[in-house]
Amino acid sequence: MRVEQRLEELGVSLPPSVNPLANYVRYVRTGNLLFISGTGPSDTAPKGKVDRDLTVEQAYGVAREVGLQILATAKEALGDLDRIRRVVKVLGMVNSNPEFERQPEVINGCSDLFVEILGDSGKHTRSAVGFAALPFNIAVEIECTMEVD
Amino acid sequence: MRVEQRLEELGVSLPPSVNPLANYVRYVRTGNLLFISGTGPSDTAPKGKVDRDLTVEQAYGVAREVGLQILATAKEALGDLDRIRRVVKVLGMVNSNPEFERQPEVINGCSDLFVEILGDSGKHTRSAVGFAALPFNIAVEIECTMEVD
Amino acid sequence: MRVEQRLEELGVSLPPSVNPLANYVRYVRTGNLLFISGTGPSDTAPKGKVDRDLTVEQAYGVAREVGLQILATAKEALGDLDRIRRVVKVLGMVNSNPEFERQPEVINGCSDLFVEILGDSGKHTRSAVGFAALPFNIAVEIECTMEVD
Repeated sequence: MRVEQRLEELGVSLPPSVNPLANYVRYVRTGNLLFISGTGPSDTAPKGKVDRDLTVEQAYGVAREVGLQILATAKEALGDLDRIRRVVKVLGMVNSNPEFERQPEVINGCSDLFVEILGDSGKHTRSAVGFAALPFNIAVEIECTMEVD
Repeated sequence: MRVEQRLEELGVSLPPSVNPLANYVRYVRTGNLLFISGTGPSDTAPKGKVDRDLTVEQAYGVAREVGLQILATAKEALGDLDRIRRVVKVLGMVNSNPEFERQPEVINGCSDLFVEILGDSGKHTRSAVGFAALPFNIAVEIECTMEVD
Repeated sequence: MRVEQRLEELGVSLPPSVNPLANYVRYVRTGNLLFISGTGPSDTAPKGKVDRDLTVEQAYGVAREVGLQILATAKEALGDLDRIRRVVKVLGMVNSNPEFERQPEVINGCSDLFVEILGDSGKHTRSAVGFAALPFNIAVEIECTMEVD
Protein backbone atom coordinates (compact mmCIF):
# COMPACT_ATOMS: atom_id res chain seq x y z
CA MET A 1 0.00 0.00 0.00
CA ARG A 2 2.97 2.32 -0.55
CA VAL A 3 1.27 4.21 -3.34
CA GLU A 4 -1.80 4.84 -1.26
CA GLN A 5 0.34 6.13 1.62
CA ARG A 6 1.90 8.50 -0.87
CA LEU A 7 -1.56 9.72 -1.91
CA GLU A 8 -2.38 10.31 1.75
CA GLU A 9 0.87 12.19 2.41
CA LEU A 10 0.06 14.46 -0.50
CA GLY A 11 -3.48 14.96 0.79
CA VAL A 12 -4.88 13.61 -2.46
CA SER A 13 -7.96 11.41 -2.50
CA LEU A 14 -9.22 9.38 -5.43
CA PRO A 15 -12.62 10.31 -6.87
CA PRO A 16 -15.40 7.71 -7.07
CA SER A 17 -15.12 5.88 -10.38
CA VAL A 18 -17.65 6.76 -13.05
CA ASN A 19 -19.54 4.42 -15.35
CA PRO A 20 -19.19 4.61 -19.12
CA LEU A 21 -22.13 6.29 -20.83
CA ALA A 22 -22.21 3.77 -23.66
CA ASN A 23 -21.57 0.18 -24.66
CA TYR A 24 -17.95 -0.08 -23.52
CA VAL A 25 -15.97 -0.67 -20.32
CA ARG A 26 -13.52 1.41 -18.35
CA TYR A 27 -10.65 -1.10 -18.45
CA VAL A 28 -9.53 -4.35 -20.01
CA ARG A 29 -6.59 -6.41 -18.82
CA THR A 30 -4.71 -8.63 -21.25
CA GLY A 31 -1.57 -10.36 -20.00
CA ASN A 32 0.38 -7.80 -18.00
CA LEU A 33 -1.16 -4.84 -19.78
CA LEU A 34 -4.05 -2.84 -18.38
CA PHE A 35 -5.84 -0.69 -20.98
CA ILE A 36 -7.92 2.20 -19.63
CA SER A 37 -10.60 3.93 -21.73
CA GLY A 38 -10.43 7.56 -22.73
CA THR A 39 -11.27 9.31 -19.46
CA GLY A 40 -12.67 12.78 -18.85
CA PRO A 41 -13.03 14.97 -15.74
CA SER A 42 -16.11 15.35 -13.52
CA ASP A 43 -19.11 17.36 -14.70
CA THR A 44 -18.05 20.36 -12.62
CA ALA A 45 -14.68 20.83 -14.38
CA PRO A 46 -14.34 23.84 -16.71
CA LYS A 47 -15.30 22.92 -20.28
CA GLY A 48 -14.55 23.95 -23.84
CA LYS A 49 -11.56 24.86 -26.00
CA VAL A 50 -8.39 25.46 -24.03
CA ASP A 51 -7.14 29.08 -24.25
CA ARG A 52 -10.58 30.27 -25.37
CA ASP A 53 -13.12 28.94 -22.85
CA LEU A 54 -10.66 28.12 -20.07
CA THR A 55 -7.01 29.03 -19.42
CA VAL A 56 -4.03 26.74 -19.91
CA GLU A 57 -3.61 26.76 -16.11
CA GLN A 58 -7.21 25.66 -15.60
CA ALA A 59 -6.76 22.95 -18.22
CA TYR A 60 -3.64 21.72 -16.37
CA GLY A 61 -5.92 21.27 -13.36
CA VAL A 62 -8.45 19.39 -15.48
CA ALA A 63 -5.70 17.04 -16.73
CA ARG A 64 -4.63 16.44 -13.12
CA GLU A 65 -8.21 15.58 -12.20
CA VAL A 66 -8.37 13.18 -15.16
CA GLY A 67 -5.14 11.58 -13.90
CA LEU A 68 -6.78 10.96 -10.51
CA GLN A 69 -9.78 9.44 -12.26
CA ILE A 70 -7.44 7.10 -14.18
CA LEU A 71 -5.79 6.04 -10.90
CA ALA A 72 -9.27 5.40 -9.42
CA THR A 73 -10.02 3.12 -12.38
CA ALA A 74 -6.66 1.34 -11.94
CA LYS A 75 -7.44 0.81 -8.27
CA GLU A 76 -10.77 -0.74 -9.14
CA ALA A 77 -9.08 -3.00 -11.71
CA LEU A 78 -6.12 -4.02 -9.54
CA GLY A 79 -7.35 -3.73 -5.95
CA ASP A 80 -4.04 -2.16 -4.94
CA LEU A 81 -2.17 0.61 -6.80
CA ASP A 82 1.15 -1.01 -5.84
CA ARG A 83 0.42 -3.51 -8.59
CA ILE A 84 1.15 -0.81 -11.18
CA ARG A 85 4.63 -1.69 -12.44
CA ARG A 86 4.82 1.08 -14.98
CA VAL A 87 2.63 3.61 -16.72
CA VAL A 88 3.45 2.69 -20.33
CA LYS A 89 1.57 5.17 -22.48
CA VAL A 90 -0.59 8.27 -22.22
CA LEU A 91 -2.60 9.76 -25.08
CA GLY A 92 -3.44 13.30 -24.01
CA MET A 93 -6.32 14.74 -26.01
CA VAL A 94 -6.77 18.49 -25.71
CA ASN A 95 -9.87 20.31 -27.03
CA SER A 96 -8.09 22.83 -29.28
CA ASN A 97 -8.68 25.70 -31.62
CA PRO A 98 -6.63 25.44 -34.83
CA GLU A 99 -3.96 27.86 -33.62
CA PHE A 100 -3.45 26.50 -30.08
CA GLU A 101 0.05 25.03 -29.61
CA ARG A 102 0.47 24.39 -25.89
CA GLN A 103 -1.03 20.89 -25.49
CA PRO A 104 2.06 19.57 -23.63
CA GLU A 105 1.64 22.15 -20.84
CA VAL A 106 -1.95 21.00 -20.39
CA ILE A 107 -1.23 17.26 -20.27
CA ASN A 108 1.61 17.86 -17.80
CA GLY A 109 -1.21 18.07 -15.25
CA CYS A 110 -1.64 14.32 -15.60
CA SER A 111 2.04 13.46 -16.22
CA ASP A 112 3.23 15.42 -13.17
CA LEU A 113 0.61 13.67 -11.01
CA PHE A 114 1.68 10.20 -12.15
CA VAL A 115 5.35 10.88 -11.35
CA GLU A 116 4.44 12.55 -8.02
CA ILE A 117 2.37 9.57 -6.93
CA LEU A 118 4.16 6.63 -8.58
CA GLY A 119 7.77 7.85 -8.80
CA ASP A 120 9.82 6.27 -11.61
CA SER A 121 6.97 3.82 -12.31
CA GLY A 122 4.90 6.83 -13.30
CA LYS A 123 7.21 7.88 -16.15
CA HIS A 124 5.46 7.13 -19.44
CA THR A 125 5.56 7.61 -23.17
CA ARG A 126 3.15 10.26 -24.33
CA SER A 127 1.46 12.14 -27.13
CA ALA A 128 -0.22 15.42 -26.19
CA VAL A 129 -2.12 16.74 -29.19
CA GLY A 130 -5.01 18.92 -30.32
CA PHE A 131 -8.46 17.54 -31.16
CA ALA A 132 -11.13 19.42 -33.10
CA ALA A 133 -13.77 18.46 -30.55
CA LEU A 134 -14.33 16.17 -27.56
CA PRO A 135 -17.50 14.51 -26.21
CA PHE A 136 -19.78 16.76 -24.12
CA ASN A 137 -17.33 19.60 -24.87
CA ILE A 138 -14.89 18.47 -22.16
CA ALA A 139 -11.51 20.24 -22.27
CA VAL A 140 -9.28 17.18 -21.78
CA GLU A 141 -9.61 13.43 -22.32
CA ILE A 142 -6.80 10.98 -21.56
CA GLU A 143 -6.29 7.34 -22.54
CA CYS A 144 -3.74 5.24 -20.66
CA THR A 145 -1.96 1.86 -20.82
CA MET A 146 -0.14 0.39 -17.81
CA GLU A 147 2.07 -2.61 -17.16
CA VAL A 148 0.76 -4.36 -14.05
CA ASP A 149 1.55 -7.30 -11.77
CA MET B 1 -17.76 -21.18 -35.54
CA ARG B 2 -20.12 -19.83 -32.88
CA VAL B 3 -19.46 -16.23 -33.83
CA GLU B 4 -20.20 -16.87 -37.48
CA GLN B 5 -23.47 -18.60 -36.57
CA ARG B 6 -24.34 -15.49 -34.61
CA LEU B 7 -23.60 -13.34 -37.67
CA GLU B 8 -25.91 -15.58 -39.71
CA GLU B 9 -28.71 -15.45 -37.12
CA LEU B 10 -28.52 -11.68 -37.23
CA GLY B 11 -28.55 -11.71 -41.01
CA VAL B 12 -25.25 -9.87 -41.10
CA SER B 13 -22.59 -10.68 -43.68
CA LEU B 14 -18.99 -9.54 -43.64
CA PRO B 15 -17.84 -7.26 -46.46
CA PRO B 16 -14.92 -8.28 -48.66
CA SER B 17 -11.73 -6.99 -47.06
CA VAL B 18 -10.09 -3.98 -48.68
CA ASN B 19 -6.44 -3.41 -49.38
CA PRO B 20 -4.53 -0.51 -47.84
CA LEU B 21 -3.95 2.37 -50.23
CA ALA B 22 -0.38 2.90 -49.06
CA ASN B 23 2.74 1.26 -47.69
CA TYR B 24 1.20 -0.40 -44.64
CA VAL B 25 -0.79 -3.53 -43.76
CA ARG B 26 -4.27 -4.10 -42.37
CA TYR B 27 -3.18 -6.13 -39.35
CA VAL B 28 -0.14 -7.22 -37.37
CA ARG B 29 -0.17 -9.93 -34.73
CA THR B 30 2.35 -9.84 -31.89
CA GLY B 31 2.00 -12.43 -29.13
CA ASN B 32 -1.70 -12.66 -28.31
CA LEU B 33 -2.46 -9.16 -29.54
CA LEU B 34 -3.89 -8.44 -32.97
CA PHE B 35 -3.50 -4.81 -34.07
CA ILE B 36 -5.84 -3.62 -36.83
CA SER B 37 -5.13 -0.49 -38.87
CA GLY B 38 -7.40 2.53 -38.87
CA THR B 39 -10.34 1.33 -40.96
CA GLY B 40 -12.90 3.32 -42.92
CA PRO B 41 -16.22 2.43 -44.55
CA SER B 42 -16.86 1.53 -48.21
CA ASP B 43 -16.81 4.23 -50.90
CA THR B 44 -20.59 4.37 -50.97
CA ALA B 45 -20.98 5.39 -47.31
CA PRO B 46 -22.04 9.00 -46.61
CA LYS B 47 -19.01 11.28 -46.23
CA GLY B 48 -18.00 14.48 -44.48
CA LYS B 49 -18.38 16.15 -41.11
CA VAL B 50 -20.94 14.50 -38.85
CA ASP B 51 -23.95 16.72 -38.07
CA ARG B 52 -23.16 18.94 -41.08
CA ASP B 53 -22.82 16.64 -44.12
CA LEU B 54 -24.52 13.59 -42.60
CA THR B 55 -26.70 13.05 -39.53
CA VAL B 56 -25.59 11.43 -36.28
CA GLU B 57 -27.89 8.52 -37.13
CA GLN B 58 -26.26 8.07 -40.53
CA ALA B 59 -22.83 8.25 -38.90
CA TYR B 60 -23.89 5.53 -36.43
CA GLY B 61 -24.58 3.36 -39.49
CA VAL B 62 -21.16 4.22 -40.92
CA ALA B 63 -19.50 3.19 -37.63
CA ARG B 64 -21.42 -0.09 -37.73
CA GLU B 65 -20.19 -0.69 -41.28
CA VAL B 66 -16.63 0.03 -40.16
CA GLY B 67 -17.10 -2.49 -37.34
CA LEU B 68 -18.06 -5.16 -39.89
CA GLN B 69 -15.00 -4.27 -41.94
CA ILE B 70 -12.82 -4.71 -38.82
CA LEU B 71 -14.40 -8.15 -38.21
CA ALA B 72 -13.69 -9.06 -41.85
CA THR B 73 -10.03 -8.14 -41.29
CA ALA B 74 -9.96 -10.18 -38.06
CA LYS B 75 -11.41 -13.16 -39.92
CA GLU B 76 -8.71 -12.88 -42.56
CA ALA B 77 -6.04 -12.68 -39.84
CA LEU B 78 -7.40 -15.50 -37.65
CA GLY B 79 -9.29 -17.80 -40.02
CA ASP B 80 -12.08 -18.15 -37.45
CA LEU B 81 -13.71 -15.32 -35.47
CA ASP B 82 -14.04 -17.66 -32.45
CA ARG B 83 -10.34 -17.04 -31.92
CA ILE B 84 -11.13 -13.49 -30.73
CA ARG B 85 -10.82 -13.72 -26.94
CA ARG B 86 -11.54 -10.09 -26.29
CA VAL B 87 -11.79 -6.78 -28.10
CA VAL B 88 -9.28 -4.80 -26.04
CA LYS B 89 -9.39 -1.28 -27.40
CA VAL B 90 -11.23 0.87 -29.91
CA LEU B 91 -10.12 4.32 -31.05
CA GLY B 92 -13.16 5.90 -32.65
CA MET B 93 -12.25 8.83 -34.89
CA VAL B 94 -15.14 11.06 -35.90
CA ASN B 95 -14.84 13.75 -38.59
CA SER B 96 -16.01 16.72 -36.52
CA ASN B 97 -16.71 20.42 -36.67
CA PRO B 98 -15.30 22.31 -33.67
CA GLU B 99 -18.66 22.45 -31.89
CA PHE B 100 -19.78 18.83 -32.39
CA GLU B 101 -19.98 16.93 -29.07
CA ARG B 102 -21.75 13.66 -29.81
CA GLN B 103 -18.85 11.41 -30.88
CA PRO B 104 -19.86 8.61 -28.43
CA GLU B 105 -23.28 8.22 -30.07
CA VAL B 106 -21.56 7.80 -33.44
CA ILE B 107 -19.01 5.21 -32.31
CA ASN B 108 -21.74 3.22 -30.55
CA GLY B 109 -22.49 1.94 -34.05
CA CYS B 110 -19.29 -0.10 -33.84
CA SER B 111 -19.42 -0.82 -30.09
CA ASP B 112 -23.00 -2.09 -30.23
CA LEU B 113 -22.11 -4.35 -33.16
CA PHE B 114 -19.13 -5.88 -31.34
CA VAL B 115 -21.24 -6.70 -28.27
CA GLU B 116 -24.13 -7.98 -30.42
CA ILE B 117 -21.84 -10.34 -32.33
CA LEU B 118 -19.21 -11.27 -29.74
CA GLY B 119 -21.11 -10.96 -26.45
CA ASP B 120 -18.94 -10.21 -23.41
CA SER B 121 -15.80 -10.74 -25.53
CA GLY B 122 -16.89 -7.72 -27.52
CA LYS B 123 -16.77 -5.32 -24.56
CA HIS B 124 -13.81 -3.01 -25.01
CA THR B 125 -12.06 0.10 -23.77
CA ARG B 126 -12.70 3.06 -25.98
CA SER B 127 -11.99 6.66 -26.89
CA ALA B 128 -14.53 8.32 -29.20
CA VAL B 129 -13.24 11.75 -30.16
CA GLY B 130 -13.37 14.50 -32.79
CA PHE B 131 -10.79 14.86 -35.56
CA ALA B 132 -10.31 17.98 -37.67
CA ALA B 133 -10.23 15.92 -40.87
CA LEU B 134 -10.02 12.32 -42.06
CA PRO B 135 -8.56 10.80 -45.26
CA PHE B 136 -10.79 11.04 -48.35
CA ASN B 137 -13.25 12.97 -46.20
CA ILE B 138 -14.68 9.79 -44.64
CA ALA B 139 -17.00 10.41 -41.67
CA VAL B 140 -15.63 7.71 -39.35
CA GLU B 141 -12.36 5.81 -38.99
CA ILE B 142 -11.79 3.18 -36.29
CA GLU B 143 -8.61 1.53 -35.02
CA CYS B 144 -8.85 -1.67 -32.98
CA THR B 145 -6.74 -4.00 -30.83
CA MET B 146 -7.88 -7.51 -29.92
CA GLU B 147 -6.64 -10.31 -27.67
CA VAL B 148 -6.67 -13.52 -29.70
CA ASP B 149 -6.00 -17.26 -29.34
CA MET C 1 24.13 -4.74 -37.77
CA ARG C 2 22.31 -5.45 -41.04
CA VAL C 3 19.89 -2.60 -40.57
CA GLU C 4 22.67 -0.13 -39.97
CA GLN C 5 24.47 -1.31 -43.11
CA ARG C 6 21.24 -0.66 -44.96
CA LEU C 7 21.14 2.87 -43.56
CA GLU C 8 24.69 3.38 -44.74
CA GLU C 9 23.99 2.01 -48.23
CA LEU C 10 21.10 4.45 -48.52
CA GLY C 11 23.30 7.30 -47.30
CA VAL C 12 20.92 7.94 -44.42
CA SER C 13 22.20 8.91 -41.00
CA LEU C 14 20.20 8.96 -37.80
CA PRO C 15 19.72 12.31 -36.09
CA PRO C 16 20.84 12.82 -32.48
CA SER C 17 17.97 11.86 -30.18
CA VAL C 18 16.09 14.70 -28.53
CA ASN C 19 14.92 14.96 -24.96
CA PRO C 20 11.25 15.32 -24.05
CA LEU C 21 10.27 18.84 -23.07
CA ALA C 22 8.10 17.67 -20.19
CA ASN C 23 7.60 15.03 -17.51
CA TYR C 24 7.60 11.97 -19.76
CA VAL C 25 10.10 9.67 -21.50
CA ARG C 26 10.81 8.86 -25.13
CA TYR C 27 10.31 5.09 -24.83
CA VAL C 28 9.09 2.38 -22.50
CA ARG C 29 9.66 -1.31 -23.03
CA THR C 30 7.21 -3.85 -21.63
CA GLY C 31 7.72 -7.51 -22.51
CA ASN C 32 8.53 -7.61 -26.22
CA LEU C 33 6.83 -4.33 -26.99
CA LEU C 34 8.66 -1.03 -27.30
CA PHE C 35 6.40 2.01 -27.05
CA ILE C 36 7.79 5.26 -28.48
CA SER C 37 6.34 8.66 -27.57
CA GLY C 38 4.73 10.97 -30.07
CA THR C 39 7.73 12.30 -31.99
CA GLY C 40 8.11 15.49 -33.99
CA PRO C 41 10.73 16.75 -36.46
CA SER C 42 13.68 19.04 -35.73
CA ASP C 43 13.16 22.76 -35.15
CA THR C 44 14.25 23.58 -38.68
CA ALA C 45 11.49 21.53 -40.39
CA PRO C 46 8.67 23.49 -42.08
CA LYS C 47 5.79 24.11 -39.67
CA GLY C 48 2.04 24.64 -39.71
CA LYS C 49 -1.05 23.22 -41.39
CA VAL C 50 -0.27 20.93 -44.31
CA ASP C 51 -1.49 22.27 -47.68
CA ARG C 52 -1.72 25.80 -46.23
CA ASP C 53 1.65 26.57 -44.62
CA LEU C 54 3.64 23.81 -46.31
CA THR C 55 2.97 21.53 -49.28
CA VAL C 56 2.01 17.85 -49.09
CA GLU C 57 5.43 17.07 -50.59
CA GLN C 58 7.21 19.06 -47.88
CA ALA C 59 5.10 17.33 -45.23
CA TYR C 60 6.08 13.94 -46.70
CA GLY C 61 9.69 15.01 -46.05
CA VAL C 62 8.81 16.02 -42.49
CA ALA C 63 7.21 12.60 -41.88
CA ARG C 64 10.36 10.93 -43.22
CA GLU C 65 12.47 13.00 -40.83
CA VAL C 66 10.18 11.99 -37.96
CA GLY C 67 10.65 8.34 -39.00
CA LEU C 68 14.43 8.76 -38.72
CA GLN C 69 13.97 10.32 -35.30
CA ILE C 70 11.88 7.30 -34.23
CA LEU C 71 14.63 4.95 -35.46
CA ALA C 72 17.18 6.98 -33.47
CA THR C 73 15.05 6.50 -30.35
CA ALA C 74 14.75 2.76 -31.07
CA LYS C 75 18.52 2.53 -31.44
CA GLU C 76 18.98 4.22 -28.08
CA ALA C 77 16.46 1.83 -26.50
CA LEU C 78 17.78 -1.36 -28.12
CA GLY C 79 21.46 -0.71 -28.82
CA ASP C 80 21.12 -2.37 -32.23
CA LEU C 81 18.33 -1.79 -34.76
CA ASP C 82 18.49 -5.48 -35.76
CA ARG C 83 16.59 -6.15 -32.54
CA ILE C 84 13.46 -4.67 -34.14
CA ARG C 85 11.36 -7.72 -35.06
CA ARG C 86 8.44 -5.78 -36.43
CA VAL C 87 7.04 -2.28 -36.50
CA VAL C 88 3.58 -3.02 -35.11
CA LYS C 89 1.70 0.27 -35.21
CA VAL C 90 2.05 3.85 -36.39
CA LEU C 91 -0.27 6.69 -35.42
CA GLY C 92 0.38 9.44 -37.95
CA MET C 93 -0.87 12.81 -36.75
CA VAL C 94 -1.11 15.51 -39.42
CA ASN C 95 -1.73 19.18 -38.58
CA SER C 96 -4.82 19.70 -40.75
CA ASN C 97 -7.35 22.27 -41.82
CA PRO C 98 -10.93 20.97 -41.75
CA GLU C 99 -11.02 20.31 -45.49
CA PHE C 100 -7.63 18.59 -45.92
CA GLU C 101 -8.01 14.93 -46.94
CA ARG C 102 -4.54 13.73 -47.92
CA GLN C 103 -3.11 12.58 -44.56
CA PRO C 104 -2.07 9.15 -45.94
CA GLU C 105 0.21 10.75 -48.57
CA VAL C 106 1.93 12.70 -45.79
CA ILE C 107 2.47 9.77 -43.43
CA ASN C 108 3.83 7.67 -46.31
CA GLY C 109 7.04 9.63 -45.70
CA CYS C 110 7.50 7.61 -42.50
CA SER C 111 5.95 4.34 -43.75
CA ASP C 112 8.09 4.29 -46.90
CA LEU C 113 11.22 4.90 -44.81
CA PHE C 114 10.44 2.03 -42.43
CA VAL C 115 9.95 -0.43 -45.30
CA GLU C 116 13.04 0.89 -47.13
CA ILE C 117 15.23 0.43 -44.05
CA LEU C 118 13.67 -2.57 -42.31
CA GLY C 119 12.14 -4.52 -45.22
CA ASP C 120 9.16 -6.73 -44.29
CA SER C 121 9.80 -6.01 -40.59
CA GLY C 122 8.98 -2.40 -41.34
CA LYS C 123 5.42 -3.13 -42.52
CA HIS C 124 3.00 -1.87 -39.89
CA THR C 125 -0.61 -1.14 -39.08
CA ARG C 126 -1.41 2.52 -39.33
CA SER C 127 -3.85 5.36 -38.86
CA ALA C 128 -3.03 8.61 -40.69
CA VAL C 129 -5.50 11.27 -39.60
CA GLY C 130 -6.04 15.03 -39.23
CA PHE C 131 -5.53 16.88 -35.95
CA ALA C 132 -6.85 20.38 -35.22
CA ALA C 133 -3.48 21.45 -33.82
CA LEU C 134 -0.12 20.04 -32.76
CA PRO C 135 2.39 21.23 -30.15
CA PHE C 136 4.64 24.09 -31.23
CA ASN C 137 2.70 24.14 -34.52
CA ILE C 138 4.69 21.21 -35.94
CA ALA C 139 3.25 19.78 -39.16
CA VAL C 140 3.56 16.07 -38.29
CA GLU C 141 3.81 14.01 -35.10
CA ILE C 142 4.10 10.21 -35.11
CA GLU C 143 3.66 7.65 -32.34
CA CYS C 144 5.02 4.13 -32.83
CA THR C 145 4.91 0.65 -31.24
CA MET C 146 7.44 -2.05 -32.16
CA GLU C 147 7.89 -5.74 -31.37
CA VAL C 148 11.51 -6.24 -30.31
CA ASP C 149 13.93 -9.00 -29.30
